[in-house]
Amino acid sequence: MKVGIIMGSQSDLKVMSEAAEVLEQLGVAYELTIVSAHRTPERMYEYATTARENGIKAIIAGAGGAAHLPGMVASMTSLPVIGVPVKSRNSIDGWDSVLSILQMPGGVPVATVALDGAKNAGILAAQIVGAFDETVAKNLDVFKKEMKQKVLDSAENVEAKGWKEVLK
Amino acid sequence: MKVGIIMGSQSDLKVMSEAAEVLEQLGVAYELTIVSAHRTPERMYEYATTARENGIKAIIAGAGGAAHLPGMVASMTSLPVIGVPVKSRNSIDGWDSVLSILQMPGGVPVATVALDGAKNAGILAAQIVGAFDETVAKNLDVFKKEMKQKVLDSAENVEAKGWKEVLK
Amino acid sequence: MKVGIIMGSQSDLKVMSEAAEVLEQLGVAYELTIVSAHRTPERMYEYATTARENGIKAIIAGAGGAAHLPGMVASMTSLPVIGVPVKSRNSIDGWDSVLSILQMPGGVPVATVALDGAKNAGILAAQIVGAFDETVAKNLDVFKKEMKQKVLDSAENVEAKGWKEVLK
Amino acid sequence: MKVGIIMGSQSDLKVMSEAAEVLEQLGVAYELTIVSAHRTPERMYEYATTARENGIKAIIAGAGGAAHLPGMVASMTSLPVIGVPVKSRNSIDGWDSVLSILQMPGGVPVATVALDGAKNAGILAAQIVGAFDETVAKNLDVFKKEMKQKVLDSAENVEAKGWKEVLK
Amino acid sequence: MKVGIIMGSQSDLKVMSEAAEVLEQLGVAYELTIVSAHRTPERMYEYATTARENGIKAIIAGAGGAAHLPGMVASMTSLPVIGVPVKSRNSIDGWDSVLSILQMPGGVPVATVALDGAKNAGILAAQIVGAFDETVAKNLDVFKKEMKQKVLDSAENVEAKGWKEVLK
Amino acid sequence: MKVGIIMGSQSDLKVMSEAAEVLEQLGVAYELTIVSAHRTPERMYEYATTARENGIKAIIAGAGGAAHLPGMVASMTSLPVIGVPVKSRNSIDGWDSVLSILQMPGGVPVATVALDGAKNAGILAAQIVGAFDETVAKNLDVFKKEMKQKVLDSAENVEAKGWKEVLK
Amino acid sequence: MKVGIIMGSQSDLKVMSEAAEVLEQLGVAYELTIVSAHRTPERMYEYATTARENGIKAIIAGAGGAAHLPGMVASMTSLPVIGVPVKSRNSIDGWDSVLSILQMPGGVPVATVALDGAKNAGILAAQIVGAFDETVAKNLDVFKKEMKQKVLDSAENVEAKGWKEVLK
Amino acid sequence: MKVGIIMGSQSDLKVMSEAAEVLEQLGVAYELTIVSAHRTPERMYEYATTARENGIKAIIAGAGGAAHLPGMVASMTSLPVIGVPVKSRNSIDGWDSVLSILQMPGGVPVATVALDGAKNAGILAAQIVGAFDETVAKNLDVFKKEMKQKVLDSAENVEAKGWKEVLK
Repeated sequence: MKVGIIMGSQSDLKVMSEAAEVLEQLGVAYELTIVSAHRTPERMYEYATTARENGIKAIIAGAGGAAHLPGMVASMTSLPVIGVPVKSRNSIDGWDSVLSILQMPGGVPVATVALDGAKNAGILAAQIVGAFDETVAKNLDVFKKEMKQKVLDSAENVEAKGWKEVLK
Repeated sequence: MKVGIIMGSQSDLKVMSEAAEVLEQLGVAYELTIVSAHRTPERMYEYATTARENGIKAIIAGAGGAAHLPGMVASMTSLPVIGVPVKSRNSIDGWDSVLSILQMPGGVPVATVALDGAKNAGILAAQIVGAFDETVAKNLDVFKKEMKQKVLDSAENVEAKGWKEVLK
Repeated sequence: MKVGIIMGSQSDLKVMSEAAEVLEQLGVAYELTIVSAHRTPERMYEYATTARENGIKAIIAGAGGAAHLPGMVASMTSLPVIGVPVKSRNSIDGWDSVLSILQMPGGVPVATVALDGAKNAGILAAQIVGAFDETVAKNLDVFKKEMKQKVLDSAENVEAKGWKEVLK
Repeated sequence: MKVGIIMGSQSDLKVMSEAAEVLEQLGVAYELTIVSAHRTPERMYEYATTARENGIKAIIAGAGGAAHLPGMVASMTSLPVIGVPVKSRNSIDGWDSVLSILQMPGGVPVATVALDGAKNAGILAAQIVGAFDETVAKNLDVFKKEMKQKVLDSAENVEAKGWKEVLK
Repeated sequence: MKVGIIMGSQSDLKVMSEAAEVLEQLGVAYELTIVSAHRTPERMYEYATTARENGIKAIIAGAGGAAHLPGMVASMTSLPVIGVPVKSRNSIDGWDSVLSILQMPGGVPVATVALDGAKNAGILAAQIVGAFDETVAKNLDVFKKEMKQKVLDSAENVEAKGWKEVLK
Repeated sequence: MKVGIIMGSQSDLKVMSEAAEVLEQLGVAYELTIVSAHRTPERMYEYATTARENGIKAIIAGAGGAAHLPGMVASMTSLPVIGVPVKSRNSIDGWDSVLSILQMPGGVPVATVALDGAKNAGILAAQIVGAFDETVAKNLDVFKKEMKQKVLDSAENVEAKGWKEVLK
Repeated sequence: MKVGIIMGSQSDLKVMSEAAEVLEQLGVAYELTIVSAHRTPERMYEYATTARENGIKAIIAGAGGAAHLPGMVASMTSLPVIGVPVKSRNSIDGWDSVLSILQMPGGVPVATVALDGAKNAGILAAQIVGAFDETVAKNLDVFKKEMKQKVLDSAENVEAKGWKEVLK
Repeated sequence: MKVGIIMGSQSDLKVMSEAAEVLEQLGVAYELTIVSAHRTPERMYEYATTARENGIKAIIAGAGGAAHLPGMVASMTSLPVIGVPVKSRNSIDGWDSVLSILQMPGGVPVATVALDGAKNAGILAAQIVGAFDETVAKNLDVFKKEMKQKVLDSAENVEAKGWKEVLK
């Protein structure tokens, strides 16, 4: 049982590695590689159609510009596909990446997260696993508690010291 | 094991019922009700924090305009939350609905689908269940095959008759 | 020697038929069918990889929303691919269709025309053929002259009658 | 009688401190802390539902991206809530922050100011207080006069010296 | 003690009357008239500079397109000014109205509400009054409770009858 | 001494005739015809390069979509050119018309007015003439006074009758 | 006979000085000062209503964000007003500046130029003057010829040396 | 048999040279020069109307802002014209360049590529030539294979070393 992480180009790795990082933190196995919709369409086909039998439970796919990887993979598997719009060098402020992943036609959903939101893609994959796996669900609860505690700590800090001191 | 479908207002029901419809078609149980982030915040809290223990595996939440329901529910549960941006009467061409659901901060993902894409939200919820349930996975495969067959039929039709005849 | 016209769904036929119509007018052979990137990916692969050997010189591909058909076909052939962004029912004012066709990554161009601009896609395909074919080039010159004459006629009309009469 | 200033994250403090600064200048008491809609929903509920009894007359809430804090606080109190869209790191040029604060549904207003407009949020809070408090009203008049004088001084300066000298 | 409601043109009256309507419902006095920034600048000056002495506590100003009325009134009074972007006939989908009201420079805030959000402008004005007036505060609480009850009723209805019955 | 009004197509006449109408009202002579940048480039060249010697003082040019007429005419004359972005059938909500007229490079200005703002283009042309012609200047003052009076009348009307009566 | 150049703040001077510079080059007299719509409304009124009697033939007004200066000045004079949208620090990519200047209501035109297009505003003002003044018209022709020559020189340069050499 | 590359200004050369570079790589002859629609309209006319007789098979035209060069050239030749929207200094995030090239009216197509997509314009021109020329077609196939191999290599690399090592 693992999560698959793919991206269109090695230049997306810096953004997409945040998905891998948070999956490690949440105790979910994953494999990560590069698959390009436009440069290696056969490899994409192979990856998508064999994912389920390879034990993958959810696929995280990131791409930028006219980003076709998440949607095309979703067309070739019935596993949930999570799309990460990447604000790549050639993107128009990210709008192309967002719209070409989000606006899929009826029948072929892609679970889209925020622009450059690979960390949230990782968490979402863990939530999918955690809906059926007690251990991962518990890890997610711990993760949520830690986020909460950080906010409470920073609130306490700014209330105790005053904002002028904190901003210094 | 079921899917929860919620929406901010009864006026969203026409759009959101497509999620229920496709879940029935795919053999996935669901419950559907109305929960407003801005008018019934306590009810939203209650719904989100008890969803897991009520046997819900994924929550589909639809809302329009400054759409806070999906993100706020996601903040209160570690279940996967699927957000449906609804092009409501007061929306600016849907952009507000899309952005206020999609652009969640790090730590709290919402799996966003296309504008008014409730059908795809239902399919995505089924895919999440189907990653762990053989029967649903098979139903999804049948669903995909039927979509494919419809395209092949329409291709055959337009090739046989010619486009002028088809458009008449 | 012919032009291939494809579209993602029969619902795009009304828009896309304008490409066929103008190609007939310009004396360029074509074939038209339905190929869906998301519902019939294998059929798309087959179509794109055999297009050149089937005598096709340029492919016109139309699709709406997260429109992947033109870009994916372009990834699988070295023929020129002309993309028509269709303002489909689920599109956000056409922006998704435009951006997911236009903003292709380096190495895989799509010759994009205006939103719902299938007529121009047909003319562009004829221009590609006409760059190497005298007869089609002459047909294009006639076409341009007729367009010009229509403007000159309407100018003469409004100058002779006055705008108040024309608007009546 | 005081104004409450809250923000979703300590990273918003630099922008939001301008509200505190101008309130000091205008002689209006305030308290400032951190409350996250998505990471500390219970704390937000507590803050919003007790604000009135704590002597707060207006709440300034800043957040970025899918910014739910101002609208959710507004859903839980009948005090006026002023929303500051923050152009946070993960925001798409600020559009998500603006739209998810501004486009509230009927019944639950948020008084939205310009992107990163925390200073104006502070002035607006003072204007709300000043509608019922003579001293604050007078401070606002002085503030307006000073702004005016600065423009008159710079006009005199550029007219006297000439623009070439001023730009040097 | 009353609220002033102004708008740039009688064509805005249909939208802006919702502010008057909700103020009546909430027991807040108001006066309503037409003041155009671009056609009657002197009248606007007169209105804005005498509003406070006329007993007005907050001004609601609605306008469309390049909407200057709210911002210009705000420049001439230290009362809180609530701006309603109206999607007028000549507006580009409302974006011009929204941006020319929202994006005020530092020093001159306008409390902007949603596009065509005159009802929310009325509620916001009542909240400003209600921050200092017990009766209005209580009316607002009743208003909020009624909104909540309507949602609870519709939830009960859809749960009891099922969505298919409700949609019929 | 006259104003030239041109447009790319007879389909723009309904919008553009408002320029002619207001010029008549303001006592400024004009001539109106159809000149297409894309279909009759030679005619456009002829029109633009002879306009000054033909006694034209300002040119009003309207076009939609990728609207090149105003900018191209401006490149061929040193007369002031007023551009009217027309929301034509093929336009994306008017944005293409606006941006391809407004965003001219340094050296070649086009005086752009609002989307479909042909009436304002006519007034602007009259203002240009009126800067040097006393009679037209006086006509403009009368025009401004009439606009003002209409607002004052509608204000009086709504104040006297009350908005409920007016809206009936 | 001169042109008036005004701007909302000294921070706009760097952009707006390009208008002054080109007017000097074209031999057109001008005066330049600072007038703020929101901070010195009385000064703006004074400026606009006396401009004609002060010998001004056209007014160039620049402002950023919710830019009301050009439109408000236009409401108070029948001289042609040229608006320069300035991409100020608080602007959302310039869209607010552009739309709040361009989208003026019927009856009150502003001749809008490109974002930060003060140079073009200066040329446009000279063209207005040049429509009635032979000397300025000739200066404009010289200006146009110089622009043309620069392009021809750069073309010759790149053709002679080759692009690789030029880019070095 | 060659491709023509033109651009509006020498400042576009850095972007546009990528078209020349890839054409060299693909073995397609070209000539490159500077032609400005707005500064040298006669030169543009000359270039466009003689291109076919000069042996040009496709024209690549790049321009920024209100980019009229590609469309105007297309209006004067029946050769295929490829437009490159350049994100020039004065452009609003590239939207003006994109829309004023893409949204051409019926009858006059421009084959538009991505923002700053000159490399893809070169490839597209080669594809047009390659539809009728075996050698160029083979070069394109080699080009596609090399792109594919680079992705496969980077995939192998990241799988072998792991993403942490690659990102170091």
